Formats: sequence, structure tokens, C-alpha cells
Amino acid sequence: MSLNRRIVLASRPVGDPVPENFEVQDVPMPEPGEGQVLVKTLWLSIAPYMRWRMNDAKSYAPPVALGDVMVGATVGEVVRSRHSDFAAGDIVIGLGGWQQYAVCDGKALRKQDAEWGKSAVMLGVLGGNGMTAYAGLFHIGKPKPGETVVVAAASGGVGSLVGQMAKLRGARAVGIAGGPEKCRFVVDELGFDTCLDHRAPDFPQALAKACPDGIDVYFENVGGAVWNAVLPLLNDFARVPVCGVISQYSATEPPPGPDRTPELMRLILSRRLELRGFVLTDFLHIQDEFNAAAVAWHRAGQLRYREDVHQGIDAAPQAFIGMLKGRNFGKVLVQVAQD
Amino acid sequence: MSLNRRIVLASRPVGDPVPENFEVQDVPMPEPGEGQVLVKTLWLSIAPYMRWRMNDAKSYAPPVALGDVMVGATVGEVVRSRHSDFAAGDIVIGLGGWQQYAVCDGKALRKQDAEWGKSAVMLGVLGGNGMTAYAGLFHIGKPKPGETVVVAAASGGVGSLVGQMAKLRGARAVGIAGGPEKCRFVVDELGFDTCLDHRAPDFPQALAKACPDGIDVYFENVGGAVWNAVLPLLNDFARVPVCGVISQYSATEPPPGPDRTPELMRLILSRRLELRGFVLTDFLHIQDEFNAAAVAWHRAGQLRYREDVHQGIDAAPQAFIGMLKGRNFGKVLVQVAQD
Repeated sequence: MSLNRRIVLASRPVGDPVPENFEVQDVPMPEPGEGQVLVKTLWLSIAPYMRWRMNDAKSYAPPVALGDVMVGATVGEVVRSRHSDFAAGDIVIGLGGWQQYAVCDGKALRKQDAEWGKSAVMLGVLGGNGMTAYAGLFHIGKPKPGETVVVAAASGGVGSLVGQMAKLRGARAVGIAGGPEKCRFVVDELGFDTCLDHRAPDFPQALAKACPDGIDVYFENVGGAVWNAVLPLLNDFARVPVCGVISQYSATEPPPGPDRTPELMRLILSRRLELRGFVLTDFLHIQDEFNAAAVAWHRAGQLRYREDVHQGIDAAPQAFIGMLKGRNFGKVLVQVAQD
Repeated sequence: MSLNRRIVLASRPVGDPVPENFEVQDVPMPEPGEGQVLVKTLWLSIAPYMRWRMNDAKSYAPPVALGDVMVGATVGEVVRSRHSDFAAGDIVIGLGGWQQYAVCDGKALRKQDAEWGKSAVMLGVLGGNGMTAYAGLFHIGKPKPGETVVVAAASGGVGSLVGQMAKLRGARAVGIAGGPEKCRFVVDELGFDTCLDHRAPDFPQALAKACPDGIDVYFENVGGAVWNAVLPLLNDFARVPVCGVISQYSATEPPPGPDRTPELMRLILSRRLELRGFVLTDFLHIQDEFNAAAVAWHRAGQLRYREDVHQGIDAAPQAFIGMLKGRNFGKVLVQVAQD
């Protein structure tokens, strides 16, 4: 009998996740029921939101239960189908999670267009990353040509696309990333106007210098010290799509004082700022609009991206732990099977 | 030669304003130039934003200069006109400031409709207060019928109208005010569904109990401890028009820690909150829409309000200082002249 290797949540992290929070299990191959499909995972997307799902706390989605397979978006190949829309060999996108094989409801799967072969593009530029960037940037940030858009985590899966999309619509893109190598990539490969290293001791001053006309849109992925440097530079009527606060997911207690909340509320008023949180699933109604724009840009080679690929399902926990520490360089993927 | 009594900013307050920050001056009656109008002040509106204008700090409007007349909206009677649109005896609305007579540019004045006589209604329900309430509530808060709208400073000039407008459009209105007398007024006279005393020791618990379905719109006038009690109760997709933070205008240093900003940013994301600051002048384009709605409501007696009237220009500083401490009961006005 063949086995399915999977990674379950063994314990909830206190602070930064450690390998012991995960358990690798070899379990019997699952069987699809009526209307279901057995999918062999090819690619697993690793993303910061997963850290939040490990906490036993109310959020926009329920936490992963202890002993359950870790959640995650996947590209896979249909092995056996009991749903009329799918047949063996189809390449499908779904939420297979951290495992080699997943049984998915047919209605929760989408076929990957043959144009994209067995690539992970539907997990990145044409998938959740791309649509998150698009929704936050254009439906909340709404940059006008010539405005300054600042993007945190600018070399990552979402941030790298935000800046490029901003440029495609005529705005100026300023990235923030961790370290000189990532910053060079953001400027030289992705085409941002400039990129600042948030680890540099003079980061707040450098950011101010890089934004001589202030900041009109700040795409928030990070929180913490980066946010503190951005806030004083926001222009009147600036928009702040809040997509993530990766610096805070593992926080076990609030940072020491003083309490800067009143200062933030004063600035929201005096500069008439708009802060708005969002997650991808709030924007499913723009799927067609996004597809049309993103596919055209992608075919024209106008959206560059970098994949940080880890091999084999066993690599998922370390890929995830490293990403939370900023050790990734580009969109983090696990290649679970090669064919 | 007749004199004009006026109140100028003598010094900038550090913390709470004191009478010594103001100076009463008797100066020669000003003369209108070409295109200008000499207006005798009947009513002066006193409002929290004036505290902010006393600080020498960048904000949405420049600070009042030392030695300048304090700013303020006024209803007055034209004494002498050198502008073709106005004649002696006209009742006009403008920004006359804290003085008995003001020279105003004709183009900065509007005539008060004869229907309102010499009343201060154009400073309150049909003026800046009403339009501020309307803009923040309907253009940012956007309550749906049945949703819960919470209003800080609910017995004040703006807050009292926010809750009534919310009710008129089918929402549930929960007020927050200082003391049992104001709370009774908010419920019995203004018709809010309920009102909580923010000075009560169990205020956070009482607010939670008064909002069993959470909070969908929070109209922020106050900041500080009231905001801290509201934040945990905000529903997914709640909207927060930030109109004022009266508890913070006189703050000389940030409150002690921990820093609650990261917690706020996390909640903005996980609950997809929208926080947006605004001031009245951002919404001049809705003037006609507001007028149509407010005049109809006012004629039908559907917008109750209470005026807290102080007599004579000399009373302005104490009226203002008292308002910042919450000693007012209703919209604060100075009746500068009776006819």
C-alpha cells in the first residue's frame, strides 16, 4: 500500500516557530469520495499568513487544529477523479496543504491553463500573490501617475509584484527589503526606482531622502519598525492597504512604551490618512479583472519574479521558518514532486 | 470712534489652555476695503479643532499666529458692504473669528436664508456640525440598516447629529458621553438607542454589553481610553471615520507603554478595518447633497440639538476651556450680540 507523507501542526508556537511545532507523518494514501479528486502535489506555496493560522486566536480564518495538516495553496496533478470536471493528468490549483497527496472537493479546484504547463505561476504572479498585490494596490491604494508608492518586503512574493504593477500604471515605486543583495535585485531586476535596506542603521533617514515628495501609498506587509519609519512621511490623503504585519505574527507581548497609538490617530486625522486591512478572499469579485490584467502583463514579460524553491515536502517547515526570519529571496515554494 | 473687542492668541498653551493664553483687546473698528464687508458678530461657534490651531505644528490648516484673532465660524449682520452681493442688514455666515466685528471678503461669506432668522442654526445642525456629521457618517462610515453605530462625544455638536442621522437611515445608535445627565439627554431627547458614561468604572464592559452584535461604525471624536474600549468590539469590515481626538489635543507627551500600535495594525488586518481621517473642507463637494437632506430633516423636526450658549465675547475663552474639559452640554456657542 502506498503512503502519503504529510506535515501536521504538532504544537502551537510561542514566539518564533521551531521544527518541533511540526510533525512529519506517513499515513495511508487517502481515497477520494463521490465528487472528490485525489491530487498529487507538485508545488506548495509557503506564505506568511500561515504563521497566523498556527495561533489559537480569532482572525479572518480559523486556526489550524492541532494534528491537522498545515494549510497551503498547491498546484498538483490529478491521480484519480470522482468529479466529472476533472480527469487523471489534469493540472489543478487548490488548497492541498503540506502533503504529497490531497483529497480535494472538485468544486474547490480549478484547472491550470495548459499555457502554464506544470509551473507554479498560478501560485505566484497569476495566483494569490498577484491578486493580493493587485487588489491592495489598485482597489485600496489607488495610486495616481507620478505618486510615490512604498512597498515593504519588496523582494517577496507579493511586494515584488506591487512595485512593478505601480510602475506599470505610472507611479514611482520605492521598495524596502532586508539587505543589500535583495535591494539590488529589487532595483536591477524588478525595476523599482529605488530600494532601502531596513536593516541599515540610517534607514529612516534614507527612506525620507528616497521620498522627497512624501509617500502617497504605503503597501504594508511588515509592521513594527518599518511602519514607524514610514508613518511620518505619509502625505495628506495617503492610502495604506494593510496586507500583512510579518514582524508581529510571532510577538508574544506588545513592545515597550510609550504608546504610539494616540500619535497614529492624530496623524490619521490631521493628514486624513486611510488605513484599510484586507485579505485576498475579500476580493474574489475582481478575479476576472485581475486575470485580464495579470495574464497580459505576464505574457508580455512585464512582471518579473524570483522563486525561492525548496525540494521535497520535508523541507517545508524549514522553508517556512526561514521565510519568517527574512532568509528567503523571492516567492517561497516547495517542489513536492517533479512530475 | 467706536471700538472692536477681539480675542487674540497671546501665547501657545502647553497642555490644557489657560485664560492667560488669550488676550482681550479693544481696537479701532476695522474698515472694509473694496469687495469686503463689515460684519457685526451675532454668534460665534466654539469647537474642539480650535485647540489644534493653537499649536505651532503642521496640521490640516495653519496654526493661528501669535497676536492674531482666534479663528471661528460666525453668524453676523452686515453693517457696511463694499461687495455687490451684500447689503446692510443681511444675515451672513462666515469665518469672523473671536471678535465683535469682522471685515470679511465678500466671496468668503454666504447669506443665511431668511427662514432661519438670526439663529445660529447655520453654525450647528445646518452648518459645519451637521455637514461634518453627515460626511463622516455617510461618506466614510456608510452604515447599513440594522448595523450598530457608536458615537463618541454623543451630546456634543457633531456627535448628537451623527447618532440621529444614523437612526434616520435605519441603523442602531449607541452614544458615549461624560456623565449620567448627558447620557439621559442622548437617549431621552436625541433618541439614541442607548448611551454609556465613559467615566463609569465599568465603561468597557458596559459598552460591550450595549453592543451585543459588535460595532460596525465608530465615529471617532475622542481618542484615548474611549478608543481603547471600542477597538476590541469592532466587527469585521468596520469603518472608523476619525473626526476628532479631543482627548489628545492638549497631550504634551505620549502615554506610557506598552506600545499598542502593533496590536492596532494586527486588528486592522485581521478584521479588515477601515480607519479614515477627514475634515469638513475635504467634503465641500457634497454641500448640495447635505443641504437637501439636512434642511428636510430640520424642517420636519427630526434633528434635535441642544445649544450651550455663553453671553458676550469675553466669555469665549472660558467657554472653550470648559468644552475641552467636557463641561459643555451641547453645541457651544457665544452670543456676541443680541441684535
